[in-house]
Amino acid sequence: MKDIALGIDIGGTFTKFGFIDKDGNSHFDNSVVTTGHNDIETYLASLANGIKKSLKDLGPGFNLVGVGIGAPNGNYYNGTIEYAPNLDWKDVVPFVDLFKKHFDMPMALTNDANAAAIGEMIYGGAKGMKNFVVITLGTGLGSGIVVNGEVVYGHDGFAGEVGHVLVYENGRLCGCGNHGCLETYASASGIRRTVFELLCNETAPSTLRDISFNDITAKAIAKAARDGDIIALKAFEFTGKILGMKLADTVAHTSPEAIFLFGGLTNAGDLIFKPTIEHFENSLLKVYRNKIKILPSGLQETNAAVLGASALAWKELEK
Amino acid sequence: MKDIALGIDIGGTFTKFGFIDKDGNSHFDNSVVTTGHNDIETYLASLANGIKKSLKDLGPGFNLVGVGIGAPNGNYYNGTIEYAPNLDWKDVVPFVDLFKKHFDMPMALTNDANAAAIGEMIYGGAKGMKNFVVITLGTGLGSGIVVNGEVVYGHDGFAGEVGHVLVYENGRLCGCGNHGCLETYASASGIRRTVFELLCNETAPSTLRDISFNDITAKAIAKAARDGDIIALKAFEFTGKILGMKLADTVAHTSPEAIFLFGGLTNAGDLIFKPTIEHFENSLLKVYRNKIKILPSGLQETNAAVLGASALAWKELEK
Repeated sequence: MKDIALGIDIGGTFTKFGFIDKDGNSHFDNSVVTTGHNDIETYLASLANGIKKSLKDLGPGFNLVGVGIGAPNGNYYNGTIEYAPNLDWKDVVPFVDLFKKHFDMPMALTNDANAAAIGEMIYGGAKGMKNFVVITLGTGLGSGIVVNGEVVYGHDGFAGEVGHVLVYENGRLCGCGNHGCLETYASASGIRRTVFELLCNETAPSTLRDISFNDITAKAIAKAARDGDIIALKAFEFTGKILGMKLADTVAHTSPEAIFLFGGLTNAGDLIFKPTIEHFENSLLKVYRNKIKILPSGLQETNAAVLGASALAWKELEK
Repeated sequence: MKDIALGIDIGGTFTKFGFIDKDGNSHFDNSVVTTGHNDIETYLASLANGIKKSLKDLGPGFNLVGVGIGAPNGNYYNGTIEYAPNLDWKDVVPFVDLFKKHFDMPMALTNDANAAAIGEMIYGGAKGMKNFVVITLGTGLGSGIVVNGEVVYGHDGFAGEVGHVLVYENGRLCGCGNHGCLETYASASGIRRTVFELLCNETAPSTLRDISFNDITAKAIAKAARDGDIIALKAFEFTGKILGMKLADTVAHTSPEAIFLFGGLTNAGDLIFKPTIEHFENSLLKVYRNKIKILPSGLQETNAAVLGASALAWKELEK
């Protein structure tokens, strides 16, 4: 019998899950719809049924030993999802308590970025590292901070919100209601905003002038930059500058061995890594310089969230 | 026999030490001169002699069980003092290794702010807290970050340099060589700089217009503020605003239960606490609001550094 952990990644539209062994091999991936259920109980029943069916389809020879869940606004301490803006359930959902009725086994829940950090530690580039940070650059900017081999959850279970440190006082309005948060600059949506600021402030011709705000993507900006588009190049330079500057502040808190960047924006490769590393090094206190690695994540993006969630299960089982 | 720990606080001019019992009672305080020795060995011999003499003067009935040392640029992992700008020894001093020749017993060293954090945890307001931060507002701004009951030392032993997070790009020149660091705004010297900026930018009469840059103190600014001096009041408001804003960023990293403020500037009481707390709350991500306490340190300033250093010894002995 091969031991496997169930990793669940709860997104606004789909809930993905997979069975992962301790070496990070995925033995089955599937998903159910997150939205449109009458209540949380109905959704959980649908999710449990999907998982049980997949487990059956997986065939004999496997032994499910634990469940890890990555969810927006997931609270590790309580196993709750609290006031997640993009989910149907708006208040505090005691997810782990409810889901244990379907799977009575070790179960843990945290937010997506913390799950990514644990995935990096168990399967990815942070194997053997005790102090590191994972930054996820998606629509927003998520972060998972690891100190002494453990994710920092903080007093309330909500530590690691580096996407909401302040860059510019009275800066861009953030989804959180504050102004000038890091994720309004350094994220897939942040670079889109930067492009539109540049299109306003500069006069250089740009293929990006033909794309609407809603249609533009980080991928299109990267393509334009590779074609030599000045606006796109400046947008990556600015995004990397802001990200590098603020990651230096993160170092001043926990002094990690490495910072892993993960998510759509990192597919731009050097376009984002080069300015980030340059401004990072220039912003660091001298004692930290030339020793902290900024690296692409060692996890494949396609199933990283499920991998990370399963890693949380493995991590719990170690305890 | 009563167990006591030796706490040593290494300053640029004096090295203070004391014998402290586990309840935080000080049984003897003394000091030797830090500067003017030919080399580190001579200094350590002088320090060891001073301590041994004091131990003798203390009389019988005491049992010295460990040594804790707080030093600028102290590295907990290696027991070294590394490139401390205000000490006579400019490179890497293997302090613990050398000092164990004089006192062969459990010994640990860290920087002043980390020692203050451990002091707060063992003797002060953070008793029983697992996640908190201590900010020391002296000439500079030091910080000790505690996560899960342990000081965060980071990969290299130098974590917790919140004084050097960026406030304003291209802002005030910092002693570290960077521009815009937090301690150039929020510290005893930071508020002095703020007063002089205000004296330049504003036209209000102020008693502070009669004091030179070198003569002005945080205490004098506090006195002027209490007398209704507009420049002094604005200086405290601005200092608290910057401090509150940036402490919110610290919360976004480690989500502490409380933040303790320590050092000269905190003697100004509400003048500094009120604007700090106001801007802190306004800057926090919603999930953190109205639950994180900003408190004055529970340690007495006069011997806090020695207390903190001795607390490090007690903390090590618990392991």
